[in-house]
Amino acid sequence: MATKHTVNEIMKPATSTDSTVTATQTVSSLADVSEETYRKGLFWSRIRHTLREPLSEFFGTMILILFGDGVVAQVTLSQDQKGDYQSISWGWGIGVMLGVYASGISGAHINPAVTFANCVFRKFPWRKFPVYMLAQVLGAMSGAAIVYGNYKSAIDTYEGGSHIRTVPGYSSTATAGIFCTYPAAFMTKTGQFFSEFVASSILMFMIFALKDDKNIGAGPLTPLALFFLIFGIGACFGWETGYAINLARDFGPRLVSYMIGYGHNVWAAGNYYFWVPMVAPFFGTTFGGWLYDMFLYVDESPVNTPWVGVKRIILPQQSTAIHRSVV
Amino acid sequence: MATKHTVNEIMKPATSTDSTVTATQTVSSLADVSEETYRKGLFWSRIRHTLREPLSEFFGTMILILFGDGVVAQVTLSQDQKGDYQSISWGWGIGVMLGVYASGISGAHINPAVTFANCVFRKFPWRKFPVYMLAQVLGAMSGAAIVYGNYKSAIDTYEGGSHIRTVPGYSSTATAGIFCTYPAAFMTKTGQFFSEFVASSILMFMIFALKDDKNIGAGPLTPLALFFLIFGIGACFGWETGYAINLARDFGPRLVSYMIGYGHNVWAAGNYYFWVPMVAPFFGTTFGGWLYDMFLYVDESPVNTPWVGVKRIILPQQSTAIHRSVV
Amino acid sequence: MATKHTVNEIMKPATSTDSTVTATQTVSSLADVSEETYRKGLFWSRIRHTLREPLSEFFGTMILILFGDGVVAQVTLSQDQKGDYQSISWGWGIGVMLGVYASGISGAHINPAVTFANCVFRKFPWRKFPVYMLAQVLGAMSGAAIVYGNYKSAIDTYEGGSHIRTVPGYSSTATAGIFCTYPAAFMTKTGQFFSEFVASSILMFMIFALKDDKNIGAGPLTPLALFFLIFGIGACFGWETGYAINLARDFGPRLVSYMIGYGHNVWAAGNYYFWVPMVAPFFGTTFGGWLYDMFLYVDESPVNTPWVGVKRIILPQQSTAIHRSVV
Amino acid sequence: MATKHTVNEIMKPATSTDSTVTATQTVSSLADVSEETYRKGLFWSRIRHTLREPLSEFFGTMILILFGDGVVAQVTLSQDQKGDYQSISWGWGIGVMLGVYASGISGAHINPAVTFANCVFRKFPWRKFPVYMLAQVLGAMSGAAIVYGNYKSAIDTYEGGSHIRTVPGYSSTATAGIFCTYPAAFMTKTGQFFSEFVASSILMFMIFALKDDKNIGAGPLTPLALFFLIFGIGACFGWETGYAINLARDFGPRLVSYMIGYGHNVWAAGNYYFWVPMVAPFFGTTFGGWLYDMFLYVDESPVNTPWVGVKRIILPQQSTAIHRSVV
Repeated sequence: MATKHTVNEIMKPATSTDSTVTATQTVSSLADVSEETYRKGLFWSRIRHTLREPLSEFFGTMILILFGDGVVAQVTLSQDQKGDYQSISWGWGIGVMLGVYASGISGAHINPAVTFANCVFRKFPWRKFPVYMLAQVLGAMSGAAIVYGNYKSAIDTYEGGSHIRTVPGYSSTATAGIFCTYPAAFMTKTGQFFSEFVASSILMFMIFALKDDKNIGAGPLTPLALFFLIFGIGACFGWETGYAINLARDFGPRLVSYMIGYGHNVWAAGNYYFWVPMVAPFFGTTFGGWLYDMFLYVDESPVNTPWVGVKRIILPQQSTAIHRSVV
Repeated sequence: MATKHTVNEIMKPATSTDSTVTATQTVSSLADVSEETYRKGLFWSRIRHTLREPLSEFFGTMILILFGDGVVAQVTLSQDQKGDYQSISWGWGIGVMLGVYASGISGAHINPAVTFANCVFRKFPWRKFPVYMLAQVLGAMSGAAIVYGNYKSAIDTYEGGSHIRTVPGYSSTATAGIFCTYPAAFMTKTGQFFSEFVASSILMFMIFALKDDKNIGAGPLTPLALFFLIFGIGACFGWETGYAINLARDFGPRLVSYMIGYGHNVWAAGNYYFWVPMVAPFFGTTFGGWLYDMFLYVDESPVNTPWVGVKRIILPQQSTAIHRSVV
Repeated sequence: MATKHTVNEIMKPATSTDSTVTATQTVSSLADVSEETYRKGLFWSRIRHTLREPLSEFFGTMILILFGDGVVAQVTLSQDQKGDYQSISWGWGIGVMLGVYASGISGAHINPAVTFANCVFRKFPWRKFPVYMLAQVLGAMSGAAIVYGNYKSAIDTYEGGSHIRTVPGYSSTATAGIFCTYPAAFMTKTGQFFSEFVASSILMFMIFALKDDKNIGAGPLTPLALFFLIFGIGACFGWETGYAINLARDFGPRLVSYMIGYGHNVWAAGNYYFWVPMVAPFFGTTFGGWLYDMFLYVDESPVNTPWVGVKRIILPQQSTAIHRSVV
Repeated sequence: MATKHTVNEIMKPATSTDSTVTATQTVSSLADVSEETYRKGLFWSRIRHTLREPLSEFFGTMILILFGDGVVAQVTLSQDQKGDYQSISWGWGIGVMLGVYASGISGAHINPAVTFANCVFRKFPWRKFPVYMLAQVLGAMSGAAIVYGNYKSAIDTYEGGSHIRTVPGYSSTATAGIFCTYPAAFMTKTGQFFSEFVASSILMFMIFALKDDKNIGAGPLTPLALFFLIFGIGACFGWETGYAINLARDFGPRLVSYMIGYGHNVWAAGNYYFWVPMVAPFFGTTFGGWLYDMFLYVDESPVNTPWVGVKRIILPQQSTAIHRSVV
């Protein structure tokens, strides 16, 4: 019937936004007739079918970095003539929003720490974790390389020559901050870690809230709500460490900047700060996800099993059995 | 049927956004099968079930303060390098939007004065009022404490030492304004009260308008509309008193700032201003809610009972009887 | 059935946003059971029922001016410390968005020139026009008075005394611009008129586009789309004359500023500019509405009758007959 | 039934937003009863019926330029007093959003390069391409002319006389940048081309993502999502060449500025830059569209035919046959 068909169509967005979707669901949604037909006859479609989820994460993270690194490049290199700190909040917020729209096929994680928390709390299969993380890092690297290509002349002009590439803290015309984050000078290592941890916790707590249909839930407005979430994190917790809150977003472009010729200082800067945005987000998203599940979530979660999930860790088989029985 | 199921899902948001939802409804929505099963077998789930609504308000208000106090901290401490007054409007708007998304389970009040107006005009049970208010204040205190932890080094640097903590009006490097509001110097006590009263009236008038299905109603767009409402109040009525319009948002963090060591001046500043944002919002939301119900609301409200609700106050039992009969 | 009921609920917004709704429809939607019961028993409900539409326009326009004049007051009086020109775009955009949410009952015109264009092109009954315009002007006056009350001390401080009230062009500390618009100095009378005409045309062309279900149509997103429309007009066509584009918005507060004591200059300023924002918007919205109907609208409109509506003006009875026959 | 009717109504937006809609669909949607009746009796309606799609593109592009050129005029001529670079991002974003709302009837391309990519990848009929492009260029010219009329006095004041009209790079009070784009001084021709190419690729990649129902898809939120997309391109890739990414947007107004009297330099500036924003967007949108279809799109596309579409180019008839068979 026409009506039912139409209703299905408007429902689509809500369903496919779901970043906690299990692998089975995702694959089954692809197994529609035309796709199957393609697989039989078309070589590329067959390859692509296998790589579908990594490709999706790759492009989602690439879009994120294109806008994110792009806006920092424009603001830095134009010396605040073509944007200011607020533009940077806009750029990263839009990067996440559009990155999510681009990568709905794979659940739109575009952040290894988000994939990790989905593995821990939402039964996302662990075996996919390395592939997702690799795709995210490669996507971020591609995005950073394109931004570099686009702004090369401007970087040359700003740094004072095509062979000069400097890192914040070592030069007053440093441009390495375009690609990855460098902490404010007054921060201790503990403060750096805490800042990234808090921002990542808020990120994951809110993502779980936005996806929770037993709460309000953002439904088809999720990408828009994520814009506001990222804008907010940037405006409220973005100064001290630059809110990387994402290994792919920070490590990928940092590697690119090293390969381009920014030198050893991309690692040494901020007293070897580079590992903080790689490690802290995993602790943050795990804590933020746990907080939401522990206190607000009523659907299936390890926290909602006997002994608040601890049993599950100690006696995995038995607790899974119990878990299954209650659902 | 698949279709019906999906339709129910998209409807959810609209329903659960409703901050005027009665207690019965909220509880019944929780009493779904899996939850019941949990209650039987799981100790924590049983406790959590009882504390469900206070926990929801606690986290909603915590999110509000994390973003709200966070943005003021970033703008103040970076000396307008990483944000300006407009960022503050963004931060508080996002704080309310995301706080509402986090706390839909309890009706997303995150403001004692909003709870109060819902008790007066929307039959929200009075017995819940103290618990809600307590949860909101504790949530705000937690948020403020986290912001303090995150920005401690930056505050030390800004104030000039880790033991110096000063209040606006007593020092040019005061940072107490990060946590709670201090009025502009030229304001009289009457002006302070009037400003908070007007902003709170607008807040409640618009919340009732946004929730009114006989008017346009914002439905699933409510959290987004609240972003614009709070942004607007900040941009248009935010200068003179800092638009606290919320006891929990102002008193909670003020208490934290006192405990941290900002001293007696957090109470004395602005000629003992601190009680204004505690008291005025209750008058404001009551007036704003009354205005909407008196002139625009056609559904069930004390104002829409005989003698415009006055009878209900004088002769509660009789008027309730009448009230019931008309519905 | 549950499904149908729910579907009706989500449809509500789209329907009630419709500013072109005919009187019959609006009244019938009010005639629900509980309302009828109220009318029988309750004195105030009976009065209110009659005044329902004017009250709705009154409060909608009041909300518009509260935010609109409020933001200009805050930016002007804080000397750009608590906002800048962009805040003004935000404030007016939010004012229209929230004013529309508040006044859906009456079709959310909150602008006499919009009511006028609806009379001309969308069969809105002419007999309602004077009542709507009066309600809109009174609402705008109330909003301006509240803004004055709220910012009185700040105006005293800014102007240099509680009896000094000056108008732009006559003083460097003028504050009359808080309430109504004054044109830029270099503008000729023709330029002033053209600027208001163009902005009003765009306003009406876009309102008709947003409400046209045969085009994309904004549906429940209409208030949000209006925010962007007003923000855009302010950012792109707001400098020269201050984009009044609304008799109520400009004349109402101007009258209040005259009554408050800003003197004869509120009329004389800009070479007696005051009549331009009263007259030009009617020409603008009529032209903009005509443009949309002439070239893009396929539903019922005088333009879509024989001889492009001219016949209808010359021979009203006959053309109406034809018009009826084609529909 | 009432319900079904209403459901159809809310579905409309999603459907009519679709810029990839084939001609047949568009025409059939117009062939409703009242329209047919009009065609028989009304001369103008008959003409308009034929010109329906070009008229729609004309007005959509006019709205785009009214806001886009309008905001640059206001920011430039008020010397950043009434807006800054961020306002320009707002203005163009709003221009696209509202332009799309105005031109849904024709698929809301408002950009020849978008029409081109729809011809290549989405079976939009090639025979419509020239008409669409002409309508888009004429619409852009009209918009530019209205902006010129509106800001003529201000341009006279800014340039220093009513006969002085100068181009960026040749004068410090140049105003030609209001109408079309001029590249930053440090850019090489390759850099100019690459910058326009990258921005156009992102544009098309994201448009295809937003329209893809097998991905998340923006549905009725598409115009809003486009606002964020254009804002993002402006904030992140807008500095170097001014992000024309649209032949109509750049060439149309450039021609108007030449006709107005800005002289030969509108073509000569930036080492004859003018052809770059005419040519690069076609390459960009084709590449961006190819990228999306190649790696993420599973519905019907030339890329999803044997030999990734190459066969189709070499042996059009045979491959079409195959193509038909798989669908």
